[in-house]
Parts: sequence; C-alpha cells; structure tokens
Amino acid sequence: MALIVQKYGGTSVGNAERIKNVARRVAQSQKNGDKVIVVVSAMSGETNRLIALAKEVATHPEPRELDVVVSTGEQVTIGLLCMALHDIGVKAKSYTGGQVRILTDSAHTKARILNIDEAPIRRDLDEGNVVVVAGFQGTDEHGNITTLGRGGSDTTAVAIAAALKADECQIYTDVDGVYTTDPRIVPEARKLDTITFEEMLELASLGSKVLQIRSVEFAGKYKVKLRVLSSFQDEGEGTLITVEENHTMEQPVISGIAFNRDEAKLTVLGVPDRPGVAYQILEPIADANIDVDMIIQNIGHDGATDFSFTVSRGDLDKAVKVLEANKAALGAKAIETDNTMAKVSIVGVGMRSHPGVASKMFRTLAEEGINIQMITTSEIKISVAIAEKYLELAVRVLHKAFGLEQG
Amino acid sequence: MALIVQKYGGTSVGNAERIKNVARRVAQSQKNGDKVIVVVSAMSGETNRLIALAKEVATHPEPRELDVVVSTGEQVTIGLLCMALHDIGVKAKSYTGGQVRILTDSAHTKARILNIDEAPIRRDLDEGNVVVVAGFQGTDEHGNITTLGRGGSDTTAVAIAAALKADECQIYTDVDGVYTTDPRIVPEARKLDTITFEEMLELASLGSKVLQIRSVEFAGKYKVKLRVLSSFQDEGEGTLITVEENHTMEQPVISGIAFNRDEAKLTVLGVPDRPGVAYQILEPIADANIDVDMIIQNIGHDGATDFSFTVSRGDLDKAVKVLEANKAALGAKAIETDNTMAKVSIVGVGMRSHPGVASKMFRTLAEEGINIQMITTSEIKISVAIAEKYLELAVRVLHKAFGLEQG
Repeated sequence: MALIVQKYGGTSVGNAERIKNVARRVAQSQKNGDKVIVVVSAMSGETNRLIALAKEVATHPEPRELDVVVSTGEQVTIGLLCMALHDIGVKAKSYTGGQVRILTDSAHTKARILNIDEAPIRRDLDEGNVVVVAGFQGTDEHGNITTLGRGGSDTTAVAIAAALKADECQIYTDVDGVYTTDPRIVPEARKLDTITFEEMLELASLGSKVLQIRSVEFAGKYKVKLRVLSSFQDEGEGTLITVEENHTMEQPVISGIAFNRDEAKLTVLGVPDRPGVAYQILEPIADANIDVDMIIQNIGHDGATDFSFTVSRGDLDKAVKVLEANKAALGAKAIETDNTMAKVSIVGVGMRSHPGVASKMFRTLAEEGINIQMITTSEIKISVAIAEKYLELAVRVLHKAFGLEQG
Repeated sequence: MALIVQKYGGTSVGNAERIKNVARRVAQSQKNGDKVIVVVSAMSGETNRLIALAKEVATHPEPRELDVVVSTGEQVTIGLLCMALHDIGVKAKSYTGGQVRILTDSAHTKARILNIDEAPIRRDLDEGNVVVVAGFQGTDEHGNITTLGRGGSDTTAVAIAAALKADECQIYTDVDGVYTTDPRIVPEARKLDTITFEEMLELASLGSKVLQIRSVEFAGKYKVKLRVLSSFQDEGEGTLITVEENHTMEQPVISGIAFNRDEAKLTVLGVPDRPGVAYQILEPIADANIDVDMIIQNIGHDGATDFSFTVSRGDLDKAVKVLEANKAALGAKAIETDNTMAKVSIVGVGMRSHPGVASKMFRTLAEEGINIQMITTSEIKISVAIAEKYLELAVRVLHKAFGLEQG
C-alpha cells in the first residue's frame, strides 16, 4: 500500500464535469490499494476573477486581505471534490491550508511553507478517507491566511509529500509528461520517462512550463519522487523526476532542448574595462525592476570592453532609458539594441561527462548557416542567442543531432 | 465612545461600488467616535451560485463540504471590505468565523452559535481597527467549518453584539425601517420609530421579512439593542427594536399589520370527535415535510367535528394526497380545499391591555362585507383568513381603523 500525493491544477478542475473526472481518477487510485492525498488549485479563471474584484474595490489591495479573498478559490475546489467523491461512495475530507496547519511565514501573497502538521492527515487516511487539501495557501503563526503565490499548489503538494514521506507526488496537468522539446516545432519530440531534478530546473526556467520551479527545488531538496502526468488521459506513466542520474550506457548526452522567443539584447559599447562596471550597468536595471537573463562581458582591449545582456522584449524600451540616463556616468561610447533575438538551450546532466557537447552544438548550427550571437554555459546547460527567424530550424537540427527522437 | 455592530446584507455589498459605499459609511461611524465591528453577508447571488455549483458535482452535496464551499462567499466580502477601508485610510482587519472562534455545534448548514471569543476583537478595536467578521459561519469544536443557514449573518451580528455587550446592533438592509404595513398597499403606511421584540417576532413570522426571526429571538434573549436601517440612505434613524414596551398614553393599540397571500386551506369534514384526532391528521403532514400555519378545530356535535388548517399553496396537492391516503383510517367523511385564501394579522403589545381589539377588527371587516373564514389569536396578535381578493381592501381599512397612519 503506497502513499500517493496527487495534485490537480486549475484546468483539471475547471468545471463540474472535470471535477467529477478527477473524483473517478482518485477513486481508482484508492481502489488500487493506495492511500491518497489530493491537492487542488482553484478552478481555472477563478483566481483571476477574484483579483479583478479586489482591484475594483481598491487601487492597491492590502496584501493580508488579498490573501483572504484569493484563498477562497481553492477552498471551493476542495469542498466540491469531496462532494463528488462522496457522491461515488468514497469517504473524503477537505482541509483548508489553515485547517491542516500549513504554517508559513507572514509574507502575504508570496509566503513560504515552514511546517506541516501531518497528524490529522495521517489519522484521516488511517480511517479510510481520501484527504483533499487546498493548494497555494496556509496560515502564519498568528492565524492570518497566507498564499504562496502563483503555482503554489505544486509546492503545497510537494511539501505534503515531504512531510508525510509519500512514495510519490503526482502532478496532474494538461500535458502527459516532459518532452525533449516542444512537439509543435519538432514532431519527433519524445516524452521522457525520467529526468533529473537539475535538468528539470534548467528546462523549467527556460520556458518548458510544466512544473512550478519552486516545487521542483523543494522536491529535489527533500528527495520527493515527483511525476508529471496528464489528467485528461487514462494511459501513460508520465515523466518521473528523479534525484539519481541514470548511469546506463544508453543514456543520451542531453535530455531536452528549451527555447525562448521573448529576448531582446542590449549592448553597451566601449565601457572602461575596470572592476565594477557590470555592477554599475546592471544595478540601475535591477532598480527599475527589469529581469536580466543572459549576461556577457568579453575581454577588453585598449582599456575598453563591450557589455551585453538580454531582457524580455516588453522591458527593452525601459532598459534603454535606464542605460541612456546612465551612459555618461558609465563612460560608454554607444548603446545598441536588438529585439529580434531568441534563445536556444540544450540541457543534460550527461554533458558533464561528455566533452565536445558544446562544439557539436556550435557545429550543427554553423552547418545551417545560423550565426551565434551570444553564448552562456552552466554545468548542465548551454544556451545560445540567435536571430529569431532561425529558431525553429535550430531546435529541429539540434534535436536530430543529439538523437533525441530515439530515446 | 459607543461600541457598534453593523451588519450589511448581500444587496448592500452586491458589487464593488456598493462595497466602497459601505466602507465610506463605516469610516464615517468611526470618525464619529464609535468603535465599529462590521458583519457582512456574501455578495448577492454568490451563495446561490455556490450551491448551484455543488449540485452540479453531487446529487446530494455532503453537508460538511457544502459548508466549506458556501462559507467562501462571506470570506470574499470581508477581504474586499477591508481592502476598501484601507484604500480610504481606515485600519481594518478581517476575520472568518473560524479565525474569530465563533464556536457552533456540528449541525452543518444549520449550526447554532455556542460561544464567541471576544478577546481578539477587543484587542483589534483597542488598536484602532475596524473589525470585519464574516457572517453566517463558524467552526465546531473539531475545527470543521459550519454555516448557520440562510439569514444567519443577522444572527452572527447579534451574537457578536451580545458577546461584546455592544451599545447597539445595526442591521443595514434595503428598507429604511419597519413599517406599519406594506407601503405598496397602503401609501399612508408609516415607519415605526420603535417596536418591541415580541411584535417584531410576530411581524417577521407573518411575512414582513426585514429581519431573520432567529436573530430577533437572540437579540431579545440577550437584550441587544437592535436597529434596522437602510444602507442606501444616509438620513434616518431606522426602527429600534426594544425590550421595553412604550408605556405612554399615546401608544397605539396595535403596531402593524402583516399579511400573507400564500395560503391554502384544507378542511377534514366529519372526523370522530375524540382525543388524538389533531395528532392523527397532522403527524403524516409533518412527516411529508409540509409546514402547517393556522390550525382550527371547532367543537363537535353528534360525535363528529370539522378540522381545518392552512399550508403554503405549493404544498396543497401534496397535503391532499397525504390526507386522502389517511382518510379511511381517520374515519373522515370528506376533504375540502380552498387555495384562494389570504391571511391578515394585526400585531401589537397594546392589545394585551385593550379589550375590544378583536371585535373592532371583525366589525371593520364586516362593514366592508369581508367574510372571515378562520380566526386564530395569540397574546399580541389576531389573524384572520379571508378570500384573497379582499386582501388589499382589508389591510387598508384596518390600517385606517386602528389609526396607524397617525403614529
């Protein structure tokens, strides 16, 4: 008898019919002999509706009260799912974050989980109940309702799985697993049976938005076995996210290809090549609340260097303004921009032990005449910035070059 | 500095604009030097939406889980009202029923309040906060969310006023007070400045649906000063509901006239005049979940009697079926029905000390040629059943005969 935590997102519980489907799936898991804890999100659209309502009554909704309002979304879902379970003869009990004592800090709208009291959950499971817990929420030490921020339901599921030492935490979503890349671009893209936490983190942060990145970190830290599955298909094992690397000979060097179209490049030309220049350039950018992605500083010559970084395209104009205001102080010669960039990344723990991965990537792109404008690397990832028009071509040729369609 | 509990119903908080209006009204009360506790209902329509959703997922929603779902309605309102208060510079803190420890029994969907922990409310008030509490809900001793049933927000307000010994409990609604009768029928109908709890109970149960009857009982029991006011008008003192009778000479004999169109009469003819016959007739009616209103049993002759009672018109067919099935066992000769009945009641504590009120009522109706079909009386109320077509006429002539327009 395994202890399973299942998490269903907003789309999976988006209407009455879908909630009944989830109930049937949960009932089947229990019938298979497993003890089941279910974590649910708000019905799709509900959180946005509540936030819109808050903005109608207050220009800057007070965070404590915003959490009171927004947390009702998940509370509705837990009640509805338990009713649906009762209706098909399955004993079930719902818990809000406060009722199951998911203790968080007091950072309203982006709280962090500190502790979970597993005793009431264990008792209910032992009495044959399915336990249904509201995702995304908790209470602080003073009993104030808190929320974990967007995607927090994944984190709730992983935290409960960690607290109860569950055998597996299953994240049901609208995709049936993690793919080597986007199947809309590469039809041969293959679902991965397993992927490591580190790879998943790199893929998630690069735009494969299957799982909330915080929950993956959490799962890795507490060694929770995490599995991504489709809530709309009955078949399939999804993708298991594991701590262990798979050390068989057949292991592919890279696991997946991520990409991001939404990149704009800024280059500050001819800045003095002295310590602190990166700080001087990027501090005002951060102060303006602009997220910076890739950062490149090349060796200087004649006492000057060029400094490039990328931001989201929507932030480009703002970033330029900040740089222009700062240009004289920096002693920069000019500022250049390019908002037709895209980023392609290959990710794989295998590249640690396989030299030559980077050169294979660069050669593959060169053979297609694709010019690489920027390169950044990490232990298990190589990212290149290229012109957006070459993006699909680049992903397809890299997918083939690294044999990802073969598994 | 007075301590005031204000309760706003679903219509008063029905949209963002109305919630902001309530915030301004609350702010004004605080500015006047009062400490203010606000109890709110769900936004109008919200409770029905949630119940409909529950019925979509389950044919018979489990009561514990129904309470989890339905209680979110008030939770949304408390958060929104506090935001709106913050937005105009008023410190405010929201509490769900569970957070303010409104302890109830475990009768889900119709729980009764057992206790309220006033300490956190007092502390927040002392710190200069407006305290906003979700009406209609609490938690039982095991921490399960409960609801008090429809109209329960009035009860929450009165219970909080009783627990904190508030100076006044103000019920804001869409009428500006309690009237001598329905102004749509008698344009001269006059708003009462004061009314006793007993009168209010009789008027409320007879169809003047201003206040939830349970909250009036509660207020009477704990001697809470209750005032009904309009949330849409800035002027006016509303109607104060008091424990004390007003013993001035000018006091009118009766305070108001209530009426109900929705009456159907059943008469069981020629039943044996023996002990237990009322029980034999009404027990199966009660078992069929039919509410009985007026009950008349006249003296028998020749060992037989006629037994009449009234039910809601919607229940008439069901009641007839029950009686027909029971007819032979009762030894009844026949069953007659009339679904064109209406009931008119005059209510007033003054009638206790004024003999002749009943005969004045009967004479007034007789002078207009209105036949009285049934009569029931209590200490402070006389009700008559008449043909519905005479209802408006009866209310008008009685209103004039008892001088209600003069105040």
